[in-house]
Amino acid sequence: MTEWSKINSYLHGKSDILILIHEKPDGDCLGSALALGLALESKGYNPEILMPNKMPEIYEFLPGQHLISIKPPYLLPHDVLIIAVDCADTKRFEYRLPKNSVGIINIDHHISNTSFGDYNLVDAEAAAAGEIIYKLLHESDIKITGDIATCLYTAISSDTGSFSYSNTTYQTLQIAAELLAKGADIDSIRYNIYEKKPLKDLLIIKKGLDNLYLSPEGQVAACTIGYGDLSKNDLLTADTDGLINILRSTEGVEVALLFKEVAPGQVKLSLRSKSFYNVNELAQEYEGGGHPRAAGCTIRGNLSDIVDEVLQKAEGALKGRGDNERSN
Amino acid sequence: MTEWSKINSYLHGKSDILILIHEKPDGDCLGSALALGLALESKGYNPEILMPNKMPEIYEFLPGQHLISIKPPYLLPHDVLIIAVDCADTKRFEYRLPKNSVGIINIDHHISNTSFGDYNLVDAEAAAAGEIIYKLLHESDIKITGDIATCLYTAISSDTGSFSYSNTTYQTLQIAAELLAKGADIDSIRYNIYEKKPLKDLLIIKKGLDNLYLSPEGQVAACTIGYGDLSKNDLLTADTDGLINILRSTEGVEVALLFKEVAPGQVKLSLRSKSFYNVNELAQEYEGGGHPRAAGCTIRGNLSDIVDEVLQKAEGALKGRGDNERSN
Repeated sequence: MTEWSKINSYLHGKSDILILIHEKPDGDCLGSALALGLALESKGYNPEILMPNKMPEIYEFLPGQHLISIKPPYLLPHDVLIIAVDCADTKRFEYRLPKNSVGIINIDHHISNTSFGDYNLVDAEAAAAGEIIYKLLHESDIKITGDIATCLYTAISSDTGSFSYSNTTYQTLQIAAELLAKGADIDSIRYNIYEKKPLKDLLIIKKGLDNLYLSPEGQVAACTIGYGDLSKNDLLTADTDGLINILRSTEGVEVALLFKEVAPGQVKLSLRSKSFYNVNELAQEYEGGGHPRAAGCTIRGNLSDIVDEVLQKAEGALKGRGDNERSN
Repeated sequence: MTEWSKINSYLHGKSDILILIHEKPDGDCLGSALALGLALESKGYNPEILMPNKMPEIYEFLPGQHLISIKPPYLLPHDVLIIAVDCADTKRFEYRLPKNSVGIINIDHHISNTSFGDYNLVDAEAAAAGEIIYKLLHESDIKITGDIATCLYTAISSDTGSFSYSNTTYQTLQIAAELLAKGADIDSIRYNIYEKKPLKDLLIIKKGLDNLYLSPEGQVAACTIGYGDLSKNDLLTADTDGLINILRSTEGVEVALLFKEVAPGQVKLSLRSKSFYNVNELAQEYEGGGHPRAAGCTIRGNLSDIVDEVLQKAEGALKGRGDNERSN
């Protein structure tokens, strides 16, 4: 029995389907949800992808935008089937689950997935949720259109660093090849995701590098952006990934830090590491969190005091540790 | 008859083979040449990859470095078999070809290839020379080792922008999948190519953005680095691709320019465009050249006069042209 036929038995007789995604959705989450939505729509279902905030600009090019419903968080109705995509647990939802729901289908690739669904299609070996959706559709009678292929190629290339991370497998690249053959528009993906960065992202790189700090041993690189260094909108909405990645990708740098004063006396700290240092632990000291290689927290106080304190901790922890710990 | 058996008939009876690559070799050129060299070595041949300058640092991790011979340009002996890799014509060589050579094999994927070889294995449909080498080895009795696979994955991912450019095909991704299965070390590729950028590359981004110019309509972005803004070594040897790509990837920017004063009164100009503007034509006005989307030239004169003149030309040419000309 295929996964599709199992899921199909849950869908049977229902028309309305709510697709739930996680907060701050990324390319894999959105591409997977849109692909699934388009597939369900093609079979006569009425899927709706719930989001409390508008689509991140860079993903507005993805097909299937008509399936998105921007709605503030609310208690979901119990009589609608729910499909969660790319969510490790129910805390990732921005909507409250009903008691006695007619059914929750959980499609995910996180190893930490809690199997919260009535039906769980979880494959931690998959590099992206998009791989799982591809296999699901591939074994069904649903046609993988060019639009669906574009969504899934975006999903998979997003979560694999464009096929450069170690989660990339033989299967990942085989699926990508099939998606290309089915009409994935990689020109549009490249243009919209990599070549259309908002001007504010460039300004934040410029401003951040104005205040560049490198530790004496070169293992810590940090940038500081003060409140008032940029317009409030640019400061709060620009994507800082580009800036912190420039720091992190520099030879010898193990930890990259970005201190952004988002309000007077309130500093948002983004932390990234390259190979061995657990930035999640450092973020937790300030009641933040994340992953060993990417974490964040918010700290109250004077910007330069905060910078001094965090740098001291990071540099202290890195003393005597080096490139020989690189796991690659 | 396979391409390999045809090439094999040229190799027969010879032991020494010179592999020629082009000037300023990139990941495809080097990865392909090293993969071919390792393959020939495994069959008992004595291949030598000629380069006048040392290996670019970021490619020092590639297997097969022992096959590289750093030699100043000279007239090649007539009694050694030559294999040219990734070279569209003989002007790309930095070594002089002998008259009456025993044979030249030409392996390339440029549509402009002049078929200069005694045997030409040219496939303009291939996204990278690495694809051609893969197919050549795949149909031979040569084992594609992990080392060879790492070289070829580097070659193919380099020339396809990590599988994002429109030259990426079903076959490209199929081959990448096979290379992964054969042991391509993508962790090492990612770490060495994308996560180990020299500090000087970061400093050139910082310094360049210090002097950022955006045209009123936002179609031209330019950075200026004066002689003396950085140490002479950093100024002359840092890779400026990262900086110019930050400019080019910004929304609305069609032309990105980097003015670098490499000696007092001597300005190196790098030009990139995104979608439609032919920067090659602008570079040719200053006796430079390149491609429609990437070109360069050197201009003598006062830095700020040169900047003014070039900006005026670029902005004038772009007036009234816009995003609707985007070819994607």
